[in-house]
Amino acid sequence: MAIHQRLKERNIELPDVSVPAAAYVPYVQTGNLLFVSGHIAKKDGKAWVGQLGTNMDTETGRQAAESIAIDLLGTLQAACGGDLNRIKRIVKVVSLVNANGTFTEPHLVTNGCSELLMHILGDAGAHARSAYCVAQLPMGSCVEIELVAELL
Amino acid sequence: MAIHQRLKERNIELPDVSVPAAAYVPYVQTGNLLFVSGHIAKKDGKAWVGQLGTNMDTETGRQAAESIAIDLLGTLQAACGGDLNRIKRIVKVVSLVNANGTFTEPHLVTNGCSELLMHILGDAGAHARSAYCVAQLPMGSCVEIELVAELL
Amino acid sequence: MAIHQRLKERNIELPDVSVPAAAYVPYVQTGNLLFVSGHIAKKDGKAWVGQLGTNMDTETGRQAAESIAIDLLGTLQAACGGDLNRIKRIVKVVSLVNANGTFTEPHLVTNGCSELLMHILGDAGAHARSAYCVAQLPMGSCVEIELVAELL
Repeated sequence: MAIHQRLKERNIELPDVSVPAAAYVPYVQTGNLLFVSGHIAKKDGKAWVGQLGTNMDTETGRQAAESIAIDLLGTLQAACGGDLNRIKRIVKVVSLVNANGTFTEPHLVTNGCSELLMHILGDAGAHARSAYCVAQLPMGSCVEIELVAELL
Repeated sequence: MAIHQRLKERNIELPDVSVPAAAYVPYVQTGNLLFVSGHIAKKDGKAWVGQLGTNMDTETGRQAAESIAIDLLGTLQAACGGDLNRIKRIVKVVSLVNANGTFTEPHLVTNGCSELLMHILGDAGAHARSAYCVAQLPMGSCVEIELVAELL
Repeated sequence: MAIHQRLKERNIELPDVSVPAAAYVPYVQTGNLLFVSGHIAKKDGKAWVGQLGTNMDTETGRQAAESIAIDLLGTLQAACGGDLNRIKRIVKVVSLVNANGTFTEPHLVTNGCSELLMHILGDAGAHARSAYCVAQLPMGSCVEIELVAELL
């Protein structure tokens, strides 16, 4: 209920599960652990193209990371049969920021995702994390984020 | 049996477990989960050197990723005491493509690995995945792939 | 006891748990698995800035990776309620080396971490691993390392 209300307050409508652009599946569950594939940032249904330090600033990257959090929640909702309350805990987030060798704020970009997960899921949203800059991402997307969740 | 036949049809002979070039082990099992170390692409027993976007094209990268899938299956076979039917599921693949900042097809390169895993292992081979471009890899190898598998 | 003595022999005093610089937590336990956040290399309490292949050599990178191992052990100690003997196994290490496109020795840099973990923890310290070069790291740090451990 609380999760539902917090989504509503932020006017967030969760999308359907993100369909992979290649030869893999959006998530695999093993025991109580759910491994979710990397989700790239999208805008208007296409890759949100950009590179931090080259042609995108930290604040825009942060918004892209936040939009990925919404897509990840959509995928999690599908994996949970529609009920996000089945998420016991977001265990681990790995965030890949498309950047050149001068951009040193992948952690600030990634906060856009981490903070939304924590806002929407509450304590269950607090996660371990790694964030770093990579040379490029699929279709030129600016950010890609994957996660591991524990289900009830 | 089916796995054995599909390997034979493709004329694939699995290698022994890949020996790490540094201070670690090829895999660790915890519970039913097997964490397999990153395997770099090799050619004639040495690192398959190349960088996508600089001096290697997508199709060659894809072949390199497919060759890693064979090495990963060799390591999995060793971890399973010789019986690949003990693999319940490939849970997660992470693929690192050695590329410069202009190459945006790490997902297509990685399909070379994902498709072979799915072809050989059937449904058990379908996995969650992340694929992205990194600045360099050990010994200049063009691709490195790690995975998590669930064993029966 | 043995762990304690090996730390003493090397004059290593473990720090408190490393406090994340951003919106996440240092570790999350799920079942017996402990997922530890990426720890960046630090010197004098600040990010240990450098880029392999640009302005830092392999030996210095290796020392930075060793210093991260000490910080990771500090975090593990906190997660284990002070008793490192509760670590059944270091399962998996992922090491991200801040480097330009010409540096091909991320595995040698990472050995600084792997070898210390194995020296201090003995057999429990032998782990699966991936090591690769990334475009940049938070606050310009030269190395970032995360791990998964199994607790007793």
